[in-house]
Amino acid sequence: MRSIEEIIEIKRDGGVHDVADIRRLVDAFVSGEMPDYQMAAWLMAAFIRGLDSDETAALTEAMAHSGRTVDLSSIPGVKVDKHSTGGVGDTTTLVLAPLVASCGVPVAKMSGRGLGFTGGTLDKLESIPGFTVVLDPDAFLAQVRDIGVGVIAQSADVDPADKKMYALRDVTATVPSLPLIVGSIISKKVAGGADAIVLDVKVGSGAFMKSEDDARALAAELTRVGALLGKEVTAVLTDMDQPLGHAVGNALEVREAIDTLAGRGPADLTELCLVLGAKMLVAGRVAADESEARSALEDAIATGAAIEKFRQWVAAQGGDARVADEPELLATATFTEAVVAEHAGWVTGFDAEGVGRAAMALGAGRARQEDAIDPAAGLLLAVKTGDRVEAGDTLAVLHTNMPESIAEARERLSAAVRLGDAPAAPPPLFHEV
Amino acid sequence: MRSIEEIIEIKRDGGVHDVADIRRLVDAFVSGEMPDYQMAAWLMAAFIRGLDSDETAALTEAMAHSGRTVDLSSIPGVKVDKHSTGGVGDTTTLVLAPLVASCGVPVAKMSGRGLGFTGGTLDKLESIPGFTVVLDPDAFLAQVRDIGVGVIAQSADVDPADKKMYALRDVTATVPSLPLIVGSIISKKVAGGADAIVLDVKVGSGAFMKSEDDARALAAELTRVGALLGKEVTAVLTDMDQPLGHAVGNALEVREAIDTLAGRGPADLTELCLVLGAKMLVAGRVAADESEARSALEDAIATGAAIEKFRQWVAAQGGDARVADEPELLATATFTEAVVAEHAGWVTGFDAEGVGRAAMALGAGRARQEDAIDPAAGLLLAVKTGDRVEAGDTLAVLHTNMPESIAEARERLSAAVRLGDAPAAPPPLFHEV
Repeated sequence: MRSIEEIIEIKRDGGVHDVADIRRLVDAFVSGEMPDYQMAAWLMAAFIRGLDSDETAALTEAMAHSGRTVDLSSIPGVKVDKHSTGGVGDTTTLVLAPLVASCGVPVAKMSGRGLGFTGGTLDKLESIPGFTVVLDPDAFLAQVRDIGVGVIAQSADVDPADKKMYALRDVTATVPSLPLIVGSIISKKVAGGADAIVLDVKVGSGAFMKSEDDARALAAELTRVGALLGKEVTAVLTDMDQPLGHAVGNALEVREAIDTLAGRGPADLTELCLVLGAKMLVAGRVAADESEARSALEDAIATGAAIEKFRQWVAAQGGDARVADEPELLATATFTEAVVAEHAGWVTGFDAEGVGRAAMALGAGRARQEDAIDPAAGLLLAVKTGDRVEAGDTLAVLHTNMPESIAEARERLSAAVRLGDAPAAPPPLFHEV
Repeated sequence: MRSIEEIIEIKRDGGVHDVADIRRLVDAFVSGEMPDYQMAAWLMAAFIRGLDSDETAALTEAMAHSGRTVDLSSIPGVKVDKHSTGGVGDTTTLVLAPLVASCGVPVAKMSGRGLGFTGGTLDKLESIPGFTVVLDPDAFLAQVRDIGVGVIAQSADVDPADKKMYALRDVTATVPSLPLIVGSIISKKVAGGADAIVLDVKVGSGAFMKSEDDARALAAELTRVGALLGKEVTAVLTDMDQPLGHAVGNALEVREAIDTLAGRGPADLTELCLVLGAKMLVAGRVAADESEARSALEDAIATGAAIEKFRQWVAAQGGDARVADEPELLATATFTEAVVAEHAGWVTGFDAEGVGRAAMALGAGRARQEDAIDPAAGLLLAVKTGDRVEAGDTLAVLHTNMPESIAEARERLSAAVRLGDAPAAPPPLFHEV
């Protein structure tokens, strides 16, 4: 068996690891035998030299098995998980989980909390009064068997390698590495028991992948590595040059998800959920093709089956299901303030990251793990790329309980909405399906 | 000012650091602001991407000034330091310090302890009864002003960056990096107050640099970086394919140094000391050229001035100066055992590292910092490359106080002496002067 130093040397010199080397690295790192500084040296070598698909698959497998793995076999059917690579105002999980469940694909999802401009899926769910994301594993499985849907907090003993490695990458300039990103995404899904995975890879200024080439390379490698591990992975490249829907902020996004499930949601969010949902229905073997799947999803929205599944889900996890019909039961902010256009023009685009930072200033996100989130805080965009605005027209409405944050948020939001002299075409919602 | 992560990113992506970036790295690392794992990531990036001469000079300067610097200005003359890049049975410092001092070049040397097959210079000196390598700085300077020579232990507050960085490189597979080696060597000499530096770069199986090309590249970069820092650096490439002299082990090497100072040393050790010493005399401005310098050194040996300077030196540091004339006062081992040739042949070469490991097995070296060294342990080689031996001829005599170690040492030594069927030429002592 090679020593840790010998394994680091191999990657340092551009060599290729075998499966045993990679397992040894991951096991030694998680057990504490391999200190952070040795892993940091290996991560930098892997960043610069790269990992091929076989190495990445071995890394992913070793990470997935570095802790407890979730056994979903007691739930009948093909278990399909969905993952978005991160963006601003992304409410798709809140819509998709009950929507595809209402069409017969079981959703047993574990979600992380993470850092970001607005909270993660867990924070959004917790903005529903009474909703709990902490369930014991048996109760969780029973709930999914019973009503077909459940979303809980990923427990610390699942994929500990990813948590430890990500924390180290974050401070050693080794985050934007394609194979390390692939390992992090797929290992969590494998550990979580998914049979098939639908990936929503965001591209654009508000996304992790700023260029289409990078996003396409990531999607291709995710699919390839998934296949090497026997998982069916489907990837869709979606636009993040402007925020999805109108809402950015936790309770505001829950309202928007409810609207979408009830058939009155924003066009772009609705369309993205139909496309991703259709892929999930096909992967889950409840529809023969995407056109049949799309009809089933549209029916579920039109008949009320989707919003009814949302009610069941919220009630099963202790939440107040009345929010589905009375969204005013969600937290609301004390202060609302419109940001208006200073001059007329066409909206030519957004700095989606800037929009996110405005929401964060209002209290919607957290900079550090221990920061508290205000569920009511955030903003509602009133315009989309391609819209014409006159001076004084509302660009967005800010929601906050911290009036002292309004000036900063207004400034950030104004800077993030680009107004031009000529009409601009709306960006495509999908770059590649 | 850039953040540590941003500085790591620059090198990760193959960029070039400015002086401010490098100072910030070194300062933050020494102060503890930059944790080991961040430095490990940077070291790996620097290993793979390289550092140019300006970056290496900035690193060297920042390391040299990371702690206390030694001020030798109260000692008249050009202070010349000498450094060997490590090898087996290297006794040159013990000979050169009194030899060049007896010719008028002051030697105020700080030495590290380090790990190795045999002890470092400090361990060799401590095998002289009573000799102390711990002097307070004023007493050390006074001694050098008085008798022209002194060697003490490098204190922990001099070049702390090098100590901390080397410890980390040792466990992150980042030792064999040319710029990092150059920084480590030159920064210690600059911190130690040297005006000029003569470097003995070893090449061959017993040395750190196994190939002549690597050694030549190291010598060139050492000279270039020294010049950028305003220090005159002279490098000599010397052979380490067979151990220098006959002795490997602490007291045994002191005896050999005494023999050399008294004019009866082994030819190769004597010649190396004359060549390096001549460069030191020229760098110290006490000889116009190397031929004049060599004559002065030969005279110092012939007239007894060199061995007299050794006596003064030993006495000044509390040692028993009688060892110069009665070497039996040095520690001697209880057990001595000859290793003989199993068959006749010509000595075609040595595995110098194997010879070192044999000495280490007998108790002459330390594997870990806290290991004790037996000053009496080691071995005396009876043959050199090119010699003819008959079956039963002595190859070496082992010296130890641990009889149980003899079997292992015998096996290692036998394997390290290569016997061939055809005569072999002795290797050149110098590869390049």
